[in-house]
Amino acid sequence: MTEGTEQPAMAEQPRTEPRRDENTVYIGKKGVMGYVLAVVTQFNNGAEHVVIKARGKLISRAVDVEEIVRNRFLNDMKIRDILVKTEELTSEDGSLSKVSAIEITIGK
Amino acid sequence: MTEGTEQPAMAEQPRTEPRRDENTVYIGKKGVMGYVLAVVTQFNNGAEHVVIKARGKLISRAVDVEEIVRNRFLNDMKIRDILVKTEELTSEDGSLSKVSAIEITIGK
Repeated sequence: MTEGTEQPAMAEQPRTEPRRDENTVYIGKKGVMGYVLAVVTQFNNGAEHVVIKARGKLISRAVDVEEIVRNRFLNDMKIRDILVKTEELTSEDGSLSKVSAIEITIGK
Repeated sequence: MTEGTEQPAMAEQPRTEPRRDENTVYIGKKGVMGYVLAVVTQFNNGAEHVVIKARGKLISRAVDVEEIVRNRFLNDMKIRDILVKTEELTSEDGSLSKVSAIEITIGK
């Protein structure tokens, strides 16, 4: 659910449903460099900014991704905003649990 | 080294060495609530703001601490600043490794 995916920014792609998260990379359990590539790709496709989102223990990986993107690949990018919050998740048995989340926005 | 400790703000306490980190709570591997208590204690002792610092995988715990302090204990506190950066650590064999770090400042 929090698994990150690259979201190509090709406008001609047919849309069967509204894409709710343009310019967003969700951090999941894959290796850090995959998410770094996803962020760099979005900028290369013309994104003005990219939001890196993560929850729970993956928050530290989101910071790793942001630091690697800016220090190693895109030195002219800056951190525009860092938002932290608490999200409520409904587990399979219907109970609510709270989890911390982070959203790091980077751009020129 | 990154182990968090409560730092009482009693001015009359004898100082054998300069205290370099007033108003700072370092997040370590203990339970979250211990660090929450450390932050709340600093505010109760008159601190105007408290900085929560963590490195590596402990970054997510720093966000947990901040969220619990503000949502459950000190509702009037706000996030004043969130800083992320890369720190270089020297390991025992002398090699350098890089680690992400976060500093969350909360206050009224």
